[in-house]
Formats: sequence, structure tokens, C-alpha cells
Amino acid sequence: MREIAVETRAHTQFVNVDRLIQQAVTEARLVDGLVHVHVPHTTAGITINENADPDVVVDMAAILERMVPWKGNYAHAEGNSAAHVKASLMGFSVTVPVQGGMLKLGSWQSAYFCEFDGPRRRKVWITCAPS
Amino acid sequence: MREIAVETRAHTQFVNVDRLIQQAVTEARLVDGLVHVHVPHTTAGITINENADPDVVVDMAAILERMVPWKGNYAHAEGNSAAHVKASLMGFSVTVPVQGGMLKLGSWQSAYFCEFDGPRRRKVWITCAPS
Amino acid sequence: MREIAVETRAHTQFVNVDRLIQQAVTEARLVDGLVHVHVPHTTAGITINENADPDVVVDMAAILERMVPWKGNYAHAEGNSAAHVKASLMGFSVTVPVQGGMLKLGSWQSAYFCEFDGPRRRKVWITCAPS
Repeated sequence: MREIAVETRAHTQFVNVDRLIQQAVTEARLVDGLVHVHVPHTTAGITINENADPDVVVDMAAILERMVPWKGNYAHAEGNSAAHVKASLMGFSVTVPVQGGMLKLGSWQSAYFCEFDGPRRRKVWITCAPS
Repeated sequence: MREIAVETRAHTQFVNVDRLIQQAVTEARLVDGLVHVHVPHTTAGITINENADPDVVVDMAAILERMVPWKGNYAHAEGNSAAHVKASLMGFSVTVPVQGGMLKLGSWQSAYFCEFDGPRRRKVWITCAPS
Repeated sequence: MREIAVETRAHTQFVNVDRLIQQAVTEARLVDGLVHVHVPHTTAGITINENADPDVVVDMAAILERMVPWKGNYAHAEGNSAAHVKASLMGFSVTVPVQGGMLKLGSWQSAYFCEFDGPRRRKVWITCAPS
């Protein structure tokens, strides 16, 4: 398992982590199999989505904010319940195929670390599993 | 990794893909382990849900549409931001146990390819991992 | 694959299952790899979230109820469509790293079985995959 740092710079931010995942796959010398990327936080998640038009993740952040407003009548004293829920909606891990040593995503897909309560120093844990 | 075609016929459609996954598991001669099913698109996802009453996925499509309306004040010029968000909410892969060569889902469970911007020719990528 | 019972006591309940997963990992003698936890139901899911303040999952239940109200103009005759949708939003499995025989979650993370139509006798299926 490899631990990789991700530094976020905004309260809500989608950070493309394809390059970091590929680097871990290369270092682990995984040729064919699956790579599992785990976010060990509770107010940040990970998803996959379009990398061509940066407006897609802009819309995604706005839609999630409308679905789960930051301010609400929440019990959690820290005040960031919305971030916890958004993270669960996106999920805390993605598993992606690896073929010939290369991360195998769809033509328009990238993996995005989803910061919902930043900016913070974050990390991801990467596990390679041969198939 | 096996690539399998899925052709959708409506703008929003939940397509049961159990049979396609089982076929790939059988061809890969996986006996015990996990099968990973990846959707390489950005406006379609995959989930699991009830296969007994077809109204369950009808309601699911309607509820997702209410949560993430097709028309909104979205930035993405292509106009299908809602499909991108719905796909991330469902997720882009499922991992399911395989036992004795058979896909092991709960009694009422099936895996559904989730089309959110069809009809289109789609595909899924299936990776078998022995345990 | 190990099957473990989870008994829920309320209509909506988040049950911490870390201890059950760790027990299965120990019994399987998995040292390094991934553990896959599958919920074989259609009105219950599984997610990860904060274990320190119990109010986090209280807020999560309330926010999901607001997003997907129990009562609606639903087609599914059984009347629990909201539970089906909430389960798909959380997802039906989590995959978590295992290191040195121990479930490796973030400092504040726990895995929560998510009951959305209880109380019921439920189960989870646990598969260990060495990496």
C-alpha cells in the first residue's frame, strides 16, 4: 500500500489524481489487475468523471451543494455535516482496471479526489491487486 | 479484462447486466473471488438493486431526476451535467463476490447498467480477481 | 467468503461493523490486501464515515430522508422505494485495505451498515483478497 499526499486549495475542489495513481501503479510494477484508491478521510471522497470540459466538475460541485446545503439544522457540532454526506454520496474509494501497466479508464474519464471541507492536507492510499 | 457491449434504448434506462457478467466470469473460469465491472463512460454508471418488481428502477429514475433535474443553470455547454452527476451518485463500478463459478448476489439483487444520456452504444469492462 | 449477521433495531440505522469485518479478516488470516464487504439486500447499503461524533450519522440519516422522502408518488407497490434509492446512493459494498492483518481505515473512519427499511435481520458477505 502506498500513501500519497494531495493538497487541496479550496473549500470544495475536484482534484484530478490520474497521474498520482499511475505513478503508484508503475512503482508497484503492476502489469494487469486492479488498483484500489482509498480516501482515509470523512469529509472528502473520490469519484470518476469527465476530464475534457472543466465545467463538468464545476456543475457537479454546485449540484451537490444544492442537494446537501452547507447550512442546515444539523446536530454535528463541527458544522460540516454536509461535507460528510457529500463524501458518502461520492464514495471513499474507486477501483480501476490496469492493463499492460497502464491505468485503464474510459476515453473521457479521470479519477477526481473530492474535497468538501478544504483547504486541507489530504492523502490517498493506493493498493495494487494483480488479476 | 473483457469488454462487453451494452446498447441502451432510452434517455434514462436501467439495464440488467447479470447475464453478461456471469458469461464473462464463466469464460474467465473464475471459481472463487471477486468480479469487478467498470463503466468507462461519464454519463452512465452502474448500481445494484431489486430485480423482482420492475417499478423499483422506474421509481429510482424518477427520484434521481427530481434530485438532479435535467434542466438547470449549468455551466457545461453540452447540456448533460445532470447525467454526469447521476452517474457519480450511482458510481462507475461494482465489485461482486463469485462462488463456485457463479456470480453471488443477494436473492433480490441484480446489477444494473444505468444509462442517463441515451440511447447510446455503451460498454462495460469486466475483470476477474481470484481470492 | 464469510457471511455475518447484522441485526438492526430501527427503521433507519447506521451500524458500525468494523469489529465484524476485522474478525472475518483475522479468521481468513489475511495479512496484506483488500477486504470486500457486500450487502446482499436492496433496501440497505454500506458506507464509511466518521465514528467520533455519533451526530454525524444522525445528520446523514436526516439529510438522506430530506433528499429522498419516504412518502412520494412512487410506483413500487411495497411502498419502500425511498429505501431502495438511499441504498444505491450509499452503495452495496465497500473495499478497504488490510495491512499487517489489520483493517486499515482512516483515523476517524468506520464502516457503517446502512439500514433504510428496518428493523430486520440482515447479513453481510466478506471476501478477503491478498494483494
